[in-house]
Parts: sequence; C-alpha cells; structure tokens
Amino acid sequence: MSLILSADTLLIGVNLASFASNGQPYGIIEDAAVVIFEDNINWVGKAAELPELSGDFVEVSLGGKWLTPGLIDCHTHLVFAGNRADEFEQRLQGVSYADIAKQGGGIAKTVAATRDASEQQLLSMALKSAQTLLEQGVTTIEVKSGYGLDLATESKMLQVARQIDSLLPVTIKTTFLGAHALAPEYKERADDYIELVCENMLPAIAQQNLADAVDVFCESIGFTLEQTKRIFEKASQLGLPVKLHAEQLTNLGGSELAASFNALSVDHIEFLDEAGVKAIAQSGTVATLLPGAFYFLKETQKPPVELLRQYKVPMAIATDFNPGSSPICNLPLMINMACTLFALTPEEALQGVTLNAAKALGLDEMLGSIETGKQADLVCWDIQHPNQLAYMVGTHKPLHIWQKGKQLSLHKGAK
Amino acid sequence: MSLILSADTLLIGVNLASFASNGQPYGIIEDAAVVIFEDNINWVGKAAELPELSGDFVEVSLGGKWLTPGLIDCHTHLVFAGNRADEFEQRLQGVSYADIAKQGGGIAKTVAATRDASEQQLLSMALKSAQTLLEQGVTTIEVKSGYGLDLATESKMLQVARQIDSLLPVTIKTTFLGAHALAPEYKERADDYIELVCENMLPAIAQQNLADAVDVFCESIGFTLEQTKRIFEKASQLGLPVKLHAEQLTNLGGSELAASFNALSVDHIEFLDEAGVKAIAQSGTVATLLPGAFYFLKETQKPPVELLRQYKVPMAIATDFNPGSSPICNLPLMINMACTLFALTPEEALQGVTLNAAKALGLDEMLGSIETGKQADLVCWDIQHPNQLAYMVGTHKPLHIWQKGKQLSLHKGAK
Ligand SMILES: [Zn+2]
Ligand SMILES: [Zn+2]
Repeated sequence: MSLILSADTLLIGVNLASFASNGQPYGIIEDAAVVIFEDNINWVGKAAELPELSGDFVEVSLGGKWLTPGLIDCHTHLVFAGNRADEFEQRLQGVSYADIAKQGGGIAKTVAATRDASEQQLLSMALKSAQTLLEQGVTTIEVKSGYGLDLATESKMLQVARQIDSLLPVTIKTTFLGAHALAPEYKERADDYIELVCENMLPAIAQQNLADAVDVFCESIGFTLEQTKRIFEKASQLGLPVKLHAEQLTNLGGSELAASFNALSVDHIEFLDEAGVKAIAQSGTVATLLPGAFYFLKETQKPPVELLRQYKVPMAIATDFNPGSSPICNLPLMINMACTLFALTPEEALQGVTLNAAKALGLDEMLGSIETGKQADLVCWDIQHPNQLAYMVGTHKPLHIWQKGKQLSLHKGAK
Repeated sequence: MSLILSADTLLIGVNLASFASNGQPYGIIEDAAVVIFEDNINWVGKAAELPELSGDFVEVSLGGKWLTPGLIDCHTHLVFAGNRADEFEQRLQGVSYADIAKQGGGIAKTVAATRDASEQQLLSMALKSAQTLLEQGVTTIEVKSGYGLDLATESKMLQVARQIDSLLPVTIKTTFLGAHALAPEYKERADDYIELVCENMLPAIAQQNLADAVDVFCESIGFTLEQTKRIFEKASQLGLPVKLHAEQLTNLGGSELAASFNALSVDHIEFLDEAGVKAIAQSGTVATLLPGAFYFLKETQKPPVELLRQYKVPMAIATDFNPGSSPICNLPLMINMACTLFALTPEEALQGVTLNAAKALGLDEMLGSIETGKQADLVCWDIQHPNQLAYMVGTHKPLHIWQKGKQLSLHKGAK
C-alpha cells in the first residue's frame, strides 16, 4: 500500500533553494513540489515523485518561480524609542563624538528615550520595523533588549518583542542583553551593575520567561571577559543559552569564553583569531557576521572568513538593526553586503540568512530549510537562480510568503 | 481686492523640506500649506498666510507629517536585458575577470542580451525597476541607452524608456550613450565606432527625438578625450545638451572638456582635481556622485567633496542602477551611502536627489523643489525631521505621493 499524505496546500511548478544537505549548491531541487499540512512541510521533493495526497487541499502552481525558506534575521535591536539622526547629522557637520556624548548623545539617548516610552509607543515603532522586514521575506526575527539597563525597561522591551510574535505572522526569539552598556546610575561601578544584572534582572527575566537567550557586549568599550563570564554562569544556572557581541573592535577572547559555554553564536567577530575560530568550531557555535555595522562604522578589519571556512564554522548574516551603529532595516541588502564587503559567496550569504541563522537561534530543527517536518515558512521569488538574490538590491520583492503554512496577503505596488 | 487662487488640492497640517532658497536648512517651512492646481504647485507658504482659494478643491490634512519634492534619480541604466549574477558568483568563487571576459561576460553579455530582447521584454523589466523606484518616492528618472551599440538597439532602448513615461506616473528623461563601450563589431577600431556614433546614430536619434541629452564613457577603459570631443561637437550641432561619465578610475580631463561644452553634469568624478572642479564651477555643471558604484566596485578614491563645496559646485546623487557595476535599485540607500561613504551632510545628500538632481537634468525650473509654479511632485513621509531620511535605511516608505498634482494609490503592507 502506498503512502497517502495529508495536505492543506500543494505548491507545484516551482524550483527550490531548499538549503537541505542534498549535495546540490543551495540545496537546489528543480521541478519540485511542496506539500503543506497545518503549520508544517509534510513532503518535499521532485514533482514527479509526489505521493498521493488526501484532504481538500489548495493547489498553487508557481509557474517556474523559486522558493527559499523564510528569511531569518538572527541579530536585531529593533525595539527602541527615539532616533539619532540629529547626531548623525552633527557628526557629518564636524561635531566631535566627545561633544555629542557631552550633550547626552549616543546610546544614552536611546536608553533615556526607551525608558520614557510607553509599551504602546515602543510596540508601535517595533511593529513598523518588523513589518518592513516581513515585506522583504523575513519570517523569523531575533530581538534583543538592552536599551533599558534597568529591570522595568528591559522587561518592557522583551514584552514588546513577544507581542510582535502574536500580532504579526513572524516568529520572534527574544534575547536579554542587560549588559549592553553600563546603566547611567552605575557610572564607574561596572561590577555593581553586573551584580544587578545577575542577581536582580536575570532571575526575574527568566522567571517570567521573557528571554530565549542571554547576550553580553564584551568589548574594550563594553564589559570585560570576567564580567561576561559571570553573566554566562548565571544564565547557565537558569537554563538559558548564551550568545555574545564579541571581537568587534578588539580581541578580548570573548569567543573562546562563549565557546566554553556552548554559545549559540558569537556576533561581529572582525578581530577573531585562529584560536578563537578553532574554539567555536569545536563548540558548534555559529559565527554571525554583521556587515551593516561594518559598513556604517566604516570599519576596515574584516571577519576571518577564510578561517571560518577552513574550520567549517557555520556563518550567519544579520542586520544588527539598531539606532546607533546599524540603522539598516534591510536583510536582503545584508546578503549583498556580505558578498561585497566580506567576499562571501552568494550561497554562503543566503545560507547565512536561512539555515545558519536558524542555527544561531537554536531553531535549525524547526526552521531554515525546506525539508519535511520543518515549519512551512516559504518565500516565492521571481528569479531564474538563487544567486540573483545576492546580486541585485531593491528589485527582488517576495511574490508570495507562507508563514506557518498560511499564505500572507502581500502589497500591491503604487499605481 | 485680495488674491483668489485656483485649487484642486490643498495640503495642510504639514511641514516642508522644500529645498527652496529661503535661508533655512533643507528650505524648511513648518506649519505649511501647499495648493495644487492642475499639474502644478499654485501656492506654498505658511498655513497662516494661505490666500483665499476658489474651486471645488480637496483638502488633505497631513497630521504634522513632512513633504519633500518627489525624488529624482538623475543617472540610471535601467533598460537592459539578462542578468550578471552568475559572474558575480563566479568572481566570489575565485574565477578571474579575464576568464569571465573570455567566456563572453561583462558588458558584452548585457549587450548581447539587450540586442536579443524584444521591445516588450525590455519594457517589462524596465517597468519593474521604475516601479521599484517609484515606490521609494522617486518621480523622475533619467534613463540611458548604451547596451545596444548599434542604432537599432540604442533606439529600441530609448523608445522603451520613453514608454515608461507614458505607462507609469514618473517623468522620464532619456540620454543617448552610444559611446558606453566599443561595439563588438568594431574591435580595435574605436575611431570608426565613434564615426558611426556621430554620423549614423546621433543624427537618427536626434531626428526621432529619442534623446534629451548625450553622454559618453570617457575613461582609460572607455573612450578618449578626443573621441569624447567629437561626440560632444556633434551633439552640440544637433542642439542636444551633453553630460559625461568622467574621472571614475583615472583623471583624463573629461570634466574640463565637458565644462567647455557647458555639460549638464559630470558623473562619478572620484579622480577629479582642483582644475577640473574650477572648470565645472564656472560652467555651472552639476557634479553627480554615484556611491552605489563606489561601494560595489570597492573603490577607495573618494570624490573631491571638499573642493566641490569650496567652489560651490551643486552635487547630485544617483543610483547609477545597472547590471554590471551598480546593481542597486534603491535611491534612498544612496542618500545614506552619500553620507556614510562620501561624508556628505544629510542636507547635501537630500538636495542631491531633489534640486541638484533636477539641475543635472536641466529640469530645475520645473522640478526639484516645492515652489510656486513647479510641477506638483510631492512625497509625504512619516518623520520628525528630514535628516531622518538620510539616516535610517529601509524603514522610511512614502505615506503618499503626488505626481503632476495627482495622488497615487500606494501599497498596503503584508498582513
Ligand atoms: Zn548588536
Ligand atoms: Zn553610469
């Protein structure tokens, strides 16, 4: 007796950049079919091998177009209030960083605005950013806290992030980043602030289940290795996975520390050396590259892509969307920037916003490729080959998006 | 007796970044009103000073939002066929430029595809790109030929460009760029090709009124100063204004030559020196900066922005959208890149895609600022200050667009 599959939707006449490990670049499957049942992919393969289907399913013929997995932005700071365009303008008019800091600029300005903002105000801004990403084909977004630097505001940010998940057809993963910067109340008392993060904030955040992971800004201008370790230890006790802003401006050894805690990812890593690459290779930690911040900060030190390849470290790509150092809410642009600025291949860059981005969130069992059993997050593109998604910027907009098996209704253009 | 103005539309509750010379940065007018009658702006000023209006006009209150002039992309190559993503991928996989050229890649590939394409195929692709720009708030686009390199295909490209004007609510200006590259039939016979351009192509193009201007790629890897001069002389005889791809990779003195022909603009100009800047200052020629090509080609020599300021040369910013060296169909991103890569101020960058872009097309009497008598091309943005348009990328989409006084119906987001 042959297999009979339950189906809600059958997608045919389509080519896949599946990112399944099938020996083909991009996991390409041409002349394919995808069977969706409830939230998930119930079958995928060559259309000629499609099994018998049961149920009152909808058949959608896609006319030879291409499907990718829903894109995943695995590193954002998209919940915030205020904006820093005035500082950007001042700097370009010749005002120094020091003078801008003196007038309360920089991250302090975003922290003050975020503390002042109501949950509703934060949500309204965050929804716009998430919607912008969704229209680009992004169906999963990681969102960090870190502009509160006190328990009330950090919680407020994470609650806003959780609400996006219920209000838009996207999967949201939240990350607690209380150690993003030193709270203004703790000037010159960084260890006391870390104490607060570990003993007050983290337990409360964990108890309310507001965070899926814990992150730290480990940097010469951020927190030390020792302080990072304290937070990681507390996170581990609470059963929360960790990730790290590491080796962006200097090499403090943050990635090796992160590897020793089996971190999900280390992010930025422009200054990572071979020992660090070896360490994260062994721990299965993803290297998340953030070309938007590299571009916007006019950095010159590039991440060690050759070493990452050599040690087979999975590379993810994300926007790092934030109001200070990467004001770029555009994940497709990051695919191009990863190629143009970091010399990734189009396949590596696309894997970086699908399968490897899922890995960076601990979600690769559920998301990131077009495979049976995974969540049916799919984007249909009017292209002849997936390499085009890495090349042209601005011209490729999703034709259709399915999220958790449901087709979204997309915009019509200006007329 | 007081003035009574004809009105079709009254926009109130709005702030303007008008780019009129009113002594304010961005030509800002807060608490403003704009009166539209037929295609044009019939009055603009402080709402408190609004004169009496006649006619059965529509009143639109914009709730404190901001208007800019419709954006202008004054340098594109958006009519083309084929795509070069495969070459991009090969280069990132380590294949040399020489090997790619050997297999018929580079501009030769686009020329072959464009010659092969039907007018309908070209139009269909070009409309998508123009539509993409329009949704970003771009209401005027310059389009160059230059992928035909024979009269039939150059004419076909320009006819396609003209058709966009009638099919979409955008103003199209066309530029004949027969001397974009050497036609394959004329290998090692550049002077003969220039002869063809001058004696065959240009007269025919002019006679059919297909071009609003004439351009040349004057460069070490393009055409010489002498060849450029020949084309400029012919264009002048035919009454067509000129512009020039100049000083992108080397300094050949193209800008000084262009200035001697009162060129509308010189474009790229990374290698322009002080003598060249002086020359274009004197001729009133616009300096069009193309940060997308600079980014994509990983150039390091920046245009002489300080000199351009010193000599008060108007700077325009454009996408240079093309399938080879600037595959970026995104003018708002260019505003950010002009600031980030070339250190323009947000005001300079925005003036570069409005008033100065209009100048680069010889259209500044009609477009580029919000002033009485100009065409009513207006974009409404949800911002608190125009500097935000230069800062964040991706989050600012037009709320409303008026083109020639008519309000366009814009997209709704994914739901
Ligand atoms: Zn970050
Ligand atoms: Zn060009």
